[in-house]
Amino acid sequence: MAVSVESSSLLATLSPGKRTRLRRLLYDYGPGEGTLLLLPIDQGIEHGPRDFFPNPASKDPEYQFRLAAEAGYSAIACGYGMASKYYPSYAGQVPLLLKLNSKTDIPPSDEAFSPCNASVEDAVRLGADAVGYTLYVGSPRQEEDLIQLGKVRQECDRFGMPLVIWAYPRGRDVEKKGGQNSLYAIDYAARVAMEMGADVVKLNMPKLNADKDKDAPAPYNEMEVTQEEAIRHAVESAGRALVVLSGGSKIDDDKLLAQTRMIMEAGGSGVIFGRNVWQRDWNSASDIIDQIKQSLIKSRTRIP
Amino acid sequence: MAVSVESSSLLATLSPGKRTRLRRLLYDYGPGEGTLLLLPIDQGIEHGPRDFFPNPASKDPEYQFRLAAEAGYSAIACGYGMASKYYPSYAGQVPLLLKLNSKTDIPPSDEAFSPCNASVEDAVRLGADAVGYTLYVGSPRQEEDLIQLGKVRQECDRFGMPLVIWAYPRGRDVEKKGGQNSLYAIDYAARVAMEMGADVVKLNMPKLNADKDKDAPAPYNEMEVTQEEAIRHAVESAGRALVVLSGGSKIDDDKLLAQTRMIMEAGGSGVIFGRNVWQRDWNSASDIIDQIKQSLIKSRTRIP
Amino acid sequence: MAVSVESSSLLATLSPGKRTRLRRLLYDYGPGEGTLLLLPIDQGIEHGPRDFFPNPASKDPEYQFRLAAEAGYSAIACGYGMASKYYPSYAGQVPLLLKLNSKTDIPPSDEAFSPCNASVEDAVRLGADAVGYTLYVGSPRQEEDLIQLGKVRQECDRFGMPLVIWAYPRGRDVEKKGGQNSLYAIDYAARVAMEMGADVVKLNMPKLNADKDKDAPAPYNEMEVTQEEAIRHAVESAGRALVVLSGGSKIDDDKLLAQTRMIMEAGGSGVIFGRNVWQRDWNSASDIIDQIKQSLIKSRTRIP
Amino acid sequence: MAVSVESSSLLATLSPGKRTRLRRLLYDYGPGEGTLLLLPIDQGIEHGPRDFFPNPASKDPEYQFRLAAEAGYSAIACGYGMASKYYPSYAGQVPLLLKLNSKTDIPPSDEAFSPCNASVEDAVRLGADAVGYTLYVGSPRQEEDLIQLGKVRQECDRFGMPLVIWAYPRGRDVEKKGGQNSLYAIDYAARVAMEMGADVVKLNMPKLNADKDKDAPAPYNEMEVTQEEAIRHAVESAGRALVVLSGGSKIDDDKLLAQTRMIMEAGGSGVIFGRNVWQRDWNSASDIIDQIKQSLIKSRTRIP
Amino acid sequence: MAVSVESSSLLATLSPGKRTRLRRLLYDYGPGEGTLLLLPIDQGIEHGPRDFFPNPASKDPEYQFRLAAEAGYSAIACGYGMASKYYPSYAGQVPLLLKLNSKTDIPPSDEAFSPCNASVEDAVRLGADAVGYTLYVGSPRQEEDLIQLGKVRQECDRFGMPLVIWAYPRGRDVEKKGGQNSLYAIDYAARVAMEMGADVVKLNMPKLNADKDKDAPAPYNEMEVTQEEAIRHAVESAGRALVVLSGGSKIDDDKLLAQTRMIMEAGGSGVIFGRNVWQRDWNSASDIIDQIKQSLIKSRTRIP
Repeated sequence: MAVSVESSSLLATLSPGKRTRLRRLLYDYGPGEGTLLLLPIDQGIEHGPRDFFPNPASKDPEYQFRLAAEAGYSAIACGYGMASKYYPSYAGQVPLLLKLNSKTDIPPSDEAFSPCNASVEDAVRLGADAVGYTLYVGSPRQEEDLIQLGKVRQECDRFGMPLVIWAYPRGRDVEKKGGQNSLYAIDYAARVAMEMGADVVKLNMPKLNADKDKDAPAPYNEMEVTQEEAIRHAVESAGRALVVLSGGSKIDDDKLLAQTRMIMEAGGSGVIFGRNVWQRDWNSASDIIDQIKQSLIKSRTRIP
Repeated sequence: MAVSVESSSLLATLSPGKRTRLRRLLYDYGPGEGTLLLLPIDQGIEHGPRDFFPNPASKDPEYQFRLAAEAGYSAIACGYGMASKYYPSYAGQVPLLLKLNSKTDIPPSDEAFSPCNASVEDAVRLGADAVGYTLYVGSPRQEEDLIQLGKVRQECDRFGMPLVIWAYPRGRDVEKKGGQNSLYAIDYAARVAMEMGADVVKLNMPKLNADKDKDAPAPYNEMEVTQEEAIRHAVESAGRALVVLSGGSKIDDDKLLAQTRMIMEAGGSGVIFGRNVWQRDWNSASDIIDQIKQSLIKSRTRIP
Repeated sequence: MAVSVESSSLLATLSPGKRTRLRRLLYDYGPGEGTLLLLPIDQGIEHGPRDFFPNPASKDPEYQFRLAAEAGYSAIACGYGMASKYYPSYAGQVPLLLKLNSKTDIPPSDEAFSPCNASVEDAVRLGADAVGYTLYVGSPRQEEDLIQLGKVRQECDRFGMPLVIWAYPRGRDVEKKGGQNSLYAIDYAARVAMEMGADVVKLNMPKLNADKDKDAPAPYNEMEVTQEEAIRHAVESAGRALVVLSGGSKIDDDKLLAQTRMIMEAGGSGVIFGRNVWQRDWNSASDIIDQIKQSLIKSRTRIP
Repeated sequence: MAVSVESSSLLATLSPGKRTRLRRLLYDYGPGEGTLLLLPIDQGIEHGPRDFFPNPASKDPEYQFRLAAEAGYSAIACGYGMASKYYPSYAGQVPLLLKLNSKTDIPPSDEAFSPCNASVEDAVRLGADAVGYTLYVGSPRQEEDLIQLGKVRQECDRFGMPLVIWAYPRGRDVEKKGGQNSLYAIDYAARVAMEMGADVVKLNMPKLNADKDKDAPAPYNEMEVTQEEAIRHAVESAGRALVVLSGGSKIDDDKLLAQTRMIMEAGGSGVIFGRNVWQRDWNSASDIIDQIKQSLIKSRTRIP
Repeated sequence: MAVSVESSSLLATLSPGKRTRLRRLLYDYGPGEGTLLLLPIDQGIEHGPRDFFPNPASKDPEYQFRLAAEAGYSAIACGYGMASKYYPSYAGQVPLLLKLNSKTDIPPSDEAFSPCNASVEDAVRLGADAVGYTLYVGSPRQEEDLIQLGKVRQECDRFGMPLVIWAYPRGRDVEKKGGQNSLYAIDYAARVAMEMGADVVKLNMPKLNADKDKDAPAPYNEMEVTQEEAIRHAVESAGRALVVLSGGSKIDDDKLLAQTRMIMEAGGSGVIFGRNVWQRDWNSASDIIDQIKQSLIKSRTRIP
């Protein structure tokens, strides 16, 4: 890849409010040194309580809040109901990233849209240091989505609140062009998030699949890239916005750490690991978090 | 069950306004001692006058208002029209829980959505101590629902008004995954209500049905639980939010009292009994209410 | 019927503004003594000018306004365009009931919805003493309808303006359950109007039809009632809200007067007669109005 | 026809702002003496530039503005884009009637709806003396239309701005009942416009067609009227609102003048001629305008 | 063509704010002397990152911003996310034209609609000198589009901000009448943009195609025009609004310069070249920009 984005500082372009808050996540909490380790706890609404069965302790949100605070995450990401009832005991001990929109996975996702149930002002009142927004790129309802996101973005500018966009390709038309995990779709999503004003973009790991990729537009239909190159493409498409990648459902430790390293070496700024961490008991979770933090620091290639 | 929620106080996390009002329902009216006995009188709009035929006296809302006040309920739950015309004579004698949304059952419920006809400000003006909102979890129209609820929740925060969510799985996609009474659906609904900011969650009794449950996502499709364990699951999914369960259509007295005891022993905070109470004549209704109140106090396991 | 609603005063529960205005219709104009005789002139938009052909003079709204004022109606009910152009000459001579919503009957009514074209503030500015709202109970678009009505109701509270709801069962789902004139549907509509905050409910006459009623939910599918009992059911379902019934298309004089008497004896508070009155020439119209007024006074059974 | 509307003065019922402005169109500009000669130049958006090919000079809006000012029209009717760029040079020389809504004719008109792109406040700022609104009577989207019009009407009242409604029957349901040019449909449209608060109603010429009229509701399906009687029906249905009729596509001079005379003798207040005038060269256009003006004055039968 | 529009000055009719800002683009930056050379960089959201593969350097928005500033464009056109992160370093060095709406091309375009994600106030805050809006003329969703555009236009008037409309015929009904590149469609789009209040209209090059044009309405279905006459038609339809044409996907240099000359000779005010410029390396891009600028100055025929 010819373009180097390492030299472009994101923090330098941000307003004082955004810089103050995002700097906290990048340097003052979690692994620090410009990296991000985020703990998402929105699975209860996105998938239902079934994700908590592997580790019953995880059903009580206290588990994730305590883990985020004590094991030292950069931030905990959750919705308003949980933030208002569980964050008070941890206020100031770990930054809060308030997810503003969410939905259940009961209806099919061919026309996915995630409605806002909270506002940036809610986030300010709770002392949050960032807000999160799930954008379903390419959904037939993208018009509503982009309008809703545009208003969130304006409120972020108004209050100096960093905007983290979960950029997920989704919907029936995405499926016709290689699917929601294709490089085509994730690369596109990364760019859209940046063009919509994201400060941080959360992506899923692109899955290379020569067979499905044939349906993607050129040149993706014939591209041959390694997994790391695929990530780098998406990181570059996000431009000056930072990129974090997720783990998805639980995988084994070596793969998790290898993935973390690859993400950072490809220009990523961190990881967002939920089930991979809190579907373990306390000690095992603390353990893997330590290893992830070391890996993040060791493999980082970008100064945000 | 590994998680104990008994030790988490809800009242301690609430704002002064919410605490003041919800405390009234839990301690100053009705059975007290941290329990809830709610009388719903929204069947006239939700089902039509047909529910009043078994006891013609019940057609006049005076009947339910007087019953709630004289037999000592924690609160009476009704819509604006009834509250504005019948509550004035009982103002201060029994707390008012104003239902903000409702609909008729004439159209089919495959795309259920319950529109707001009143606001939290209306509730404040009437002297209500809580508001109620019906959320149809998993409906194809969940986007509108979550947005509408989000605005109600924000007004509740603004005015310090406790939020009671009637969390009902509903709609065609729920039916494909085990149905609206399955543990899967009710457990999911409990969690969604909490994540949306409920202070109290109203649930229907989960119905275990091995045959239908096969269509639910794992692990629900293969779970074997007792009725009490099913309730406990849902109570835990609601986290720090209190849970009340309903009776539905009229059942016999022994079953009603047994159900009440089971709800409380499973961590529930109370019951909401409408038709089971007011489809009786005055003396019989007063009688059963007394027994329910005793059962609530005797079987309670949670300090809210 | 076991319930007596006669003893419940509506006026006593109303705010000063609503009481002042509604009292005018009930006592100061028209037949008085707590009765209502309303003249609707919204047929021009609801059906088109075809209703005026039987009496060409009726095409000029002057005809109805003069009739309402000179023959002594309790109020004239019309939309904003007519009120703004014709009411000024009659201001203060007959109370104005401003209809806030209406529609043409050109599209089919299977998804009926009547959009507001005027506001309660418009009514205040015109000196109106009440507003009217058409609610299509059970329509697939009931959500929009209930939201729209909720806002009108809030404005009525804000300005102390009495709210008259035209409660019409309508739409494809109503037709599947016995039809829009069944007792089931009209009884339900009466209750919904009251629960939505109506001060006065306008109903169509229920039509008993054993054949169609079989499709209605129990117990309506097997009920045997007289016409007067049917009306009484609906009057009771409206609770403390007053009920007026309409005449519909033109019927003969004896039937009209018999109907008036039956309505009043069943607990109704008055009638709303349009085409039955103004599809006659001036003298004949004045004549029948006199007889209706006498019948209203003689047969009344309820103190509002 | 039994009703005489000539004696009802419109201006007398209008607020000072409306009276001031509408009087200008009726008496101070154009033919005067209470008549209206309106020049519409919205064909560029309603039909596209194809209407300008017969007279290429007409493609430049200067042509119509100059014609309106120099030949002496009562007002020029156009949208905001044209008004803001071309009216300034003619400000005060000819009244401006600002059309607030419009659409292209590219999509089919079975669910016609014309969206507002300008506001009454825009009209005030531009110095306009009236606003225009196209209402598609009977369209399946009539609900949106009536709500949108209701808001425009309220702003007209607020600012004292005369409201001209282009009342066009339109849509698939109109076609099933005799079509958009039937007397049934146009008569209905005239009434709806008045009931919605129009001060002036613009109608298309009803087309009598015994064959299609059979599908119209009674009594229109069997009515036998002359062309002039048809117009008179519609004029009467508009009540105190003034009526202007249009010419539609270009017809020959004698027919145009005969039509003008018939319109005025049937109680109309003027004509709105676009293509019939500006699809001619300058001299020919000036010529026919002179003749139309004389005909308007000579044939008028109504004092507005 | 009979009409000469050269003599009509646009700047003379604009408000001081619009004149100040648009003058900057026309005279103070870029080629100047009343011409426009615009660099669009919205392909990342409109098409995805695939447009950047031919020149990997172009993936980093720095490339386009630096090119616009150093090679001397009249303005750079991009969305809010890019403007907020990349424009600060170039503030004041090249005017910013903020695109307010955009969408991905993943869903089909048969019902195209481009949602606003930014506001005119955003543009003011960023120091932009114009805003851009994409209007899909003739789309089945044109109603939403015209309403949304109407609000943008009002804000432009309020803030004195020039409005550039990307006028694109689009959607299934356009395809039935000759297609989105037909002269019929583009000529119509040019007029609609002007009638909606555009100060500058951006058009695609009309493609003459006798076969497809047969489906267009008369007289377009039988018109024989040269390419330059086709452009002139559209320029005239835009009236006093200035017209810029685009290059679309990359073509060879001679064709590009010939096209530029033809556009200017046909009355156009400039060009908007994106991929044709930045899909080249830096030197080659600088080179072709120089040639385009000379061509614009040499061939211009209109004083704006």
